Amino acid sequence: MAKKKIHSRHSPKETYNSIMASKTNIVVLGGGTGSFTVLSALRDQNVNLTSIVSMADDGSSTGILRDELGVLPPGDVRQCLVALADAPVMRDLFDYRFDEGSLSGHSFGNLFLSALEKTSGSFANAVENASEILRIKGRVLPATLDDVRLVMRWADTSLELKGERVIDAEHFKLDPRKAELDLAPRAAVNPEAREAILAADVVVLSPGDLYTSLGAILAIDGIDEALRTTKARIIYVCNLVTKHGQTDGFSVEDHLGEIERFIGGQVVDTVLYNTGKPPEEVLRRYDAEHAYLVRRDLREMREGIDFVGEDLLGDMAAHKNGDDMIHRSLIRHDHAKLSTAILAIDGV
Amino acid sequence: MAKKKIHSRHSPKETYNSIMASKTNIVVLGGGTGSFTVLSALRDQNVNLTSIVSMADDGSSTGILRDELGVLPPGDVRQCLVALADAPVMRDLFDYRFDEGSLSGHSFGNLFLSALEKTSGSFANAVENASEILRIKGRVLPATLDDVRLVMRWADTSLELKGERVIDAEHFKLDPRKAELDLAPRAAVNPEAREAILAADVVVLSPGDLYTSLGAILAIDGIDEALRTTKARIIYVCNLVTKHGQTDGFSVEDHLGEIERFIGGQVVDTVLYNTGKPPEEVLRRYDAEHAYLVRRDLREMREGIDFVGEDLLGDMAAHKNGDDMIHRSLIRHDHAKLSTAILAIDGV
Repeated sequence: MAKKKIHSRHSPKETYNSIMASKTNIVVLGGGTGSFTVLSALRDQNVNLTSIVSMADDGSSTGILRDELGVLPPGDVRQCLVALADAPVMRDLFDYRFDEGSLSGHSFGNLFLSALEKTSGSFANAVENASEILRIKGRVLPATLDDVRLVMRWADTSLELKGERVIDAEHFKLDPRKAELDLAPRAAVNPEAREAILAADVVVLSPGDLYTSLGAILAIDGIDEALRTTKARIIYVCNLVTKHGQTDGFSVEDHLGEIERFIGGQVVDTVLYNTGKPPEEVLRRYDAEHAYLVRRDLREMREGIDFVGEDLLGDMAAHKNGDDMIHRSLIRHDHAKLSTAILAIDGV
Repeated sequence: MAKKKIHSRHSPKETYNSIMASKTNIVVLGGGTGSFTVLSALRDQNVNLTSIVSMADDGSSTGILRDELGVLPPGDVRQCLVALADAPVMRDLFDYRFDEGSLSGHSFGNLFLSALEKTSGSFANAVENASEILRIKGRVLPATLDDVRLVMRWADTSLELKGERVIDAEHFKLDPRKAELDLAPRAAVNPEAREAILAADVVVLSPGDLYTSLGAILAIDGIDEALRTTKARIIYVCNLVTKHGQTDGFSVEDHLGEIERFIGGQVVDTVLYNTGKPPEEVLRRYDAEHAYLVRRDLREMREGIDFVGEDLLGDMAAHKNGDDMIHRSLIRHDHAKLSTAILAIDGV
C-alpha cells in the first residue's frame, strides 16, 4: 500500500533515486539571467543543484558597487540565489530594486551581498551566509574569487574591448569567432567550483549572452580544464534568439562551435535547442530589432553529439495590463518544459 | 542535588521567576541610542522585553530615505533591533555603515528596513519580518505608524522649530521648559504599543536627548494616556550629562519635571540616576564642550518618588590604540551596572 502510494506520487526516476538515496548532482554554469532560467526549472526537482556563476559583470548597480566599494560583482550571484531561495520574504527583498532618489537602480540584493562582503571578510563568506539566510535549495558558488574584467581582443589588430558592460553593448566590427576572450588579470577557478564540476553527474551550460555570460565564465583558468576532465554528461541549453551585432545569423551549431572553442575541446554531449515557434506578431517585433530564432544548421554533421530539439517556449498569450503583456510577449524558456526536457536526457 | 544546582546558578529573583514560570514584562521607551543602552543591559536577563521606539527621526541616512523613498524612519528601530538581535551575521550586517561612494553614510540596516517596507507593504510588517530574520530576543514596536515630523514651538512667540534634525542641532534661544513639543500631523499611538504599555509590569523611560528622543515619543497621542493608565512601575533612567544649548544646568529633578510635563502627570515611580564620577581628564573634555554631569537638586522635595543613585558609569580606562581610547573615554552607561540597578528596584 505504502509502496503504491510512492509510485502514484513520484516519477519512476524519482522513485529510483529515493530508493538509491542518491540524487543526481547537477552543476549549472552561466551568468545571472540564463542560470536563473535553468535553476528555476530544476529547483523543485529531486536533484542536487550547484550553481557556478560568472564573475565578470561590471554594469549598472553591480558596476557602481565594484567601482565605489571595491567589492566583487554581486549581480549574477544574486540572481542565482533568488532562483534557489526558499524564504519568501527574503527572496522578494533580494529581488527589490530601488527606483527613486540616490539609490535608484540599485538592486537590494546587490547591496546586501556587498555589505555582507565587508562584514564577513570575503565574497565567498558573503555568498555562503546569504545562502543560509535565503534558505536556498542547493549551492551557489562564484566561478572565481579574483577581481577581474572581461577583455575581448582580435589578434593582429589593435581592436580590444575591455569590460563586460562595454562588450555587451558593442556591435562587433570584426568576426567575434576570430576574437580571444580573456580576463584581466588572469582568473583562477574557485577550487570549490572546480571540485563540483569534477564530482558532477551532469553539467548544464546555461543559455545567455554567448560572449559576456557563458564566454566570461569559460575564460576562467581551470573551468575549461575541469569541463574537459569531468565524467559528467555535459548539456548545452542553446539560446532561443540571436543577438544583433554579436551573433547575427548564428545557428545552434555556431553557438556550440564557440563554446567548444572557449573550452578547448569537444566536450558537450547533448545540445538542447528550441523548435517551438512564437506568434507572428512577437516575431515581427524581434525582427525589427534584428533578432531571430536560433535554428539548426542541418548541413553540418556532428558525430558523437546528441541534438535534442523540443518546444521550449514560455507562454506568450497576450494579457490585458500593459507591463505584464510586454513581459509575456518576450521569447523565453518555459521552466516546466525546460525541466522536462533536461530530465528526459539519457544519463540525467 | 538538582535543586542546589539551580540555587548556585541563578539569583533568587531568577529562581523565583523560573518557578513561577512567568517572566516580568518590561517595556522600554525611547529613541535609538538610549533604548539601545537599556535593551543591551536587559537582553540577557530573564525578562520579557518590548521596545517601543520613537518615530520622529529625520536626520542623516534616515532623513535621506524618508525624503527620497517616502518611507517611515528606520534609524531608531534599527538600533533597537540590533540591541536585541541574536543572529550574529545579520546583526553585524544591520550595523554596517557604508563609508565610500554614493552610499556613504547609509546604514545597511536602514536600507534593509526601507526596502522591506516596500516589499512587505508596511513599516510594521518590515519590523516584524526583520525581527524574525535577526532572531531578536523580545519585541520591537514603532511607537506610531504615522508619518510625522517633530515640532517645537513657544506659545505667544513666532518661534517654531520643525524637524528632529533641526531641533537636535539647535541652541535654544528661549527656555525649552516653556516650549510645546508636538508632532505634525498629530500622531496616533500604534495600538500594539499602547497594549504593551497597559500590560507591562515595568516601563523603563530610556535616557537620551530629552526633547528629540524621549520628548518625541511622549508627544504621540495615546502614549501619555497609556503611561497615566498603566499599573506598571515606571522607571526613568536619567541622562548622565547635560546637552549644551538645550539642558544646560538641568538637574535630575529638572529632567524628571520635563518628562512629567510631556506625560501630563506624576507617573514616574523611580528615578535611576548616576552617582559615579569619571576621571578628571574626561570631565575636562566634557567641560570644554559645556556638558556637565547631571546631579540631584537636593533643595527640591518630591513625595512618592524613589530616587535611586548608583554608580552607573561604563569603564573609562585609557587604552593604547587611538580609536578605542576615544570610545572608552565617553561618559556612558555600563550595561551590567545598569542591568543590576534596574533589576534591584522594588517591583521589577
